[in-house]
Amino acid sequence: MTQLEKARRGVMTEEMRFAAAAECCEAQTILDGVAAGRIVIPSNVNGELTEPRAIGAGLKTKVNANIGASQDYPDVDEELAKLTTALEAGADAVMDLSTGGDVAAIRREIRAGCPVPLGTVPIYEAAVRVIAERGSVVDLTADDLFSVIESQAREGVDFMTLHCGVTRESVARLQKQGRLTDVVSRGGAFLVCWMLGNESENPLYTRYDDILEIAREHDVTLSLGDGLRPGSLADATDRAQVQELIILGELVKRARAAGVQAMVEGPGHVPLDQIAANVMLQKRLCEGAPFYVLGPIVTDVAPGYDHITSAIGGALAAMAGADFLCYVTPSEHLGLPTVEDVREGVIAARIAGHAADVAKGVRGAMDWDCRMSSARKARDWAKQVELAIDPVRAGAVREKRSAGDEDVCSMCSSFCAMKIVEEYLGSPAQAASAPPSLPTKVAQPKQAE
Amino acid sequence: MTQLEKARRGVMTEEMRFAAAAECCEAQTILDGVAAGRIVIPSNVNGELTEPRAIGAGLKTKVNANIGASQDYPDVDEELAKLTTALEAGADAVMDLSTGGDVAAIRREIRAGCPVPLGTVPIYEAAVRVIAERGSVVDLTADDLFSVIESQAREGVDFMTLHCGVTRESVARLQKQGRLTDVVSRGGAFLVCWMLGNESENPLYTRYDDILEIAREHDVTLSLGDGLRPGSLADATDRAQVQELIILGELVKRARAAGVQAMVEGPGHVPLDQIAANVMLQKRLCEGAPFYVLGPIVTDVAPGYDHITSAIGGALAAMAGADFLCYVTPSEHLGLPTVEDVREGVIAARIAGHAADVAKGVRGAMDWDCRMSSARKARDWAKQVELAIDPVRAGAVREKRSAGDEDVCSMCSSFCAMKIVEEYLGSPAQAASAPPSLPTKVAQPKQAE
Repeated sequence: MTQLEKARRGVMTEEMRFAAAAECCEAQTILDGVAAGRIVIPSNVNGELTEPRAIGAGLKTKVNANIGASQDYPDVDEELAKLTTALEAGADAVMDLSTGGDVAAIRREIRAGCPVPLGTVPIYEAAVRVIAERGSVVDLTADDLFSVIESQAREGVDFMTLHCGVTRESVARLQKQGRLTDVVSRGGAFLVCWMLGNESENPLYTRYDDILEIAREHDVTLSLGDGLRPGSLADATDRAQVQELIILGELVKRARAAGVQAMVEGPGHVPLDQIAANVMLQKRLCEGAPFYVLGPIVTDVAPGYDHITSAIGGALAAMAGADFLCYVTPSEHLGLPTVEDVREGVIAARIAGHAADVAKGVRGAMDWDCRMSSARKARDWAKQVELAIDPVRAGAVREKRSAGDEDVCSMCSSFCAMKIVEEYLGSPAQAASAPPSLPTKVAQPKQAE
Repeated sequence: MTQLEKARRGVMTEEMRFAAAAECCEAQTILDGVAAGRIVIPSNVNGELTEPRAIGAGLKTKVNANIGASQDYPDVDEELAKLTTALEAGADAVMDLSTGGDVAAIRREIRAGCPVPLGTVPIYEAAVRVIAERGSVVDLTADDLFSVIESQAREGVDFMTLHCGVTRESVARLQKQGRLTDVVSRGGAFLVCWMLGNESENPLYTRYDDILEIAREHDVTLSLGDGLRPGSLADATDRAQVQELIILGELVKRARAAGVQAMVEGPGHVPLDQIAANVMLQKRLCEGAPFYVLGPIVTDVAPGYDHITSAIGGALAAMAGADFLCYVTPSEHLGLPTVEDVREGVIAARIAGHAADVAKGVRGAMDWDCRMSSARKARDWAKQVELAIDPVRAGAVREKRSAGDEDVCSMCSSFCAMKIVEEYLGSPAQAASAPPSLPTKVAQPKQAE
């Protein structure tokens, strides 16, 4: 049985208990959310995740790190180093998007080293193989594709991006729409080429029941991919994107009926003022399914800084209700990320998620900020470094720009505002005896719909 | 006469024309905004700014870079290198916040090398001098302070942060409020100590008419400082902060009546969900005066990454109507920024401002993104690097992770989505003959109130 089927029967799983402990909430809250389809726990029955994660409504915003070799950089060791770095930096999930080297072997090595949920995009392995063997993705057969989906499910992949909403209907809308950047999803591009080349419907759509059967057997969480996501601000929230989302909403419903966990992927490149509407639309059209956004990045003009453009978009999306942020690294749009890029990407996405969690009143989020600010007021530098989202970086910066007086920092030196007002407004110790009224917004997870 | 007085008389200045050309708008639009006090053009009559900037409603969001020596790092050469870097990275204004070394001499060197508006916080020079000479900021006299304000005005400072709203009334509210981090503004802290130590009202408030006289004579734009801004999420939007803002609104009105240009400074540390409300409040209480926000940063827990926490907050603030973003560097809360930190800070703030400009429909903003996305679709890599907000960084990342096939990048290599769909969806050349319907939101500046 899947986590969803168990939840519906009221069976509390180890994964639910583990997730509840991490969220500091009642396990029943997790169970109820899973039963309703508003929370997913990607955890393949063939795997042995030591750190499962619950993703969805009312919970801490989660962060995914994409790793994986490309044809230009097919080195498995570099990808394993990225895995280690992503985990150290606090990624909640990892996707192996390899399209270079021995794709299946790399995935197995990453799986073996990954205690958190692992995701893949099975069409990559299928397409890479058929292009190598037969020259074109158009020569792929549906059986080739389903054989990869099944083998990856057997080998313990926890969630799979499947672009089931790239259908004749949504592709026709895309063609009518006219776009600046057409299709920027690799999986989506493979499928569009296949469909137009073969004049056939997407097998991930026609044989969706077969997908559900495999997913149910192994408890693979579907991550319904947005193959037609916008790849530029100009294409955001257009008819092709929304058409695909409507179809994904229908597929969420069918997944739930089959006892299969499902989440939905979202854009992409989205202007700031369209982000909240995109989240609302997904939540409505997909009946509250967890929303996994790829960024979104809020301007096209900052290659080299897309960890920042996506942190801006991700924070806004998560505040509006997105549940799961796919990081973007500084190398996006330019090349395969390095190990250092992975670290920057994870931290930037975690900052975005945490800022949103404070705004949403997620349990415990604001408390972290209050502890940091108390340490700052007390000029307890060791504590500040310890509490930092990246203690290594915080410690290094302080050391690099050290102050002669260790009680302050080198920006204000002896003119430290917090220090000089103490004489007149009282010290932290005095303040402790008459504590300031802290915000009371240490909230409950969102109410069930 | 000040820019404001000239605007009211319908006199079109060179500065208005220069600003209009940079904004691609009619000079009359700038003149009208200045006359109404919704736009300021900081440009001291004793200076010779070669690149004046207009800041305010309907215009491109501007970015300020804080530089300046501290007691721990009093080296003028490093500060001049930061000035060069800030300008290269695209800062619209620079503030010299020196509190170390020969403060007056450093300011003169920065002034000489700065073609864009230069701002200062005069109480720094006054406090540093009196603490050195007499031991405590409490020994400062009002005349000491006004003498520094006047000398800096004579020497061509374009805008000055003056914490005129730190009054007995607002400080009493602060004491009643109780805060986690009390006062984090250096200028605010000096004044609170002075006021409580001398049991006297803030001379910047009692002698505000004297400030207006100096500002009018030299056309110094007042940047009404928020000395009681929150220094932690827990303190955001509290009664002390809002009390000060109410007073600043009254002072804006008096400045306008005296023909003096004024903008208002804002927080600080603000949770994501309070940012839009903070901007609305400032615009209402201060009658549409330009809003100059210091960040805001959206979480306290990320020292080492506050260029990112402030880019998130700055983007949201600017989308809500903030006009001028003070950058925050990765060194914030840890030490005096390095030259490289200055570059990171300026670029992050420019990303935030531009993302907001797209969302607000500022003239020409979206066009930049469309040109970049067209270059991306065409895989014109030279053009992408040229159009990047930081061409040096973009070029370096691409070179570091180069692809064997120069037509693509090393992330997707031969599986480049945009390339493979061309065969089926048409090439950019074909698309050009049937252009996609681009967004029409190339908007006019906001209407006058």
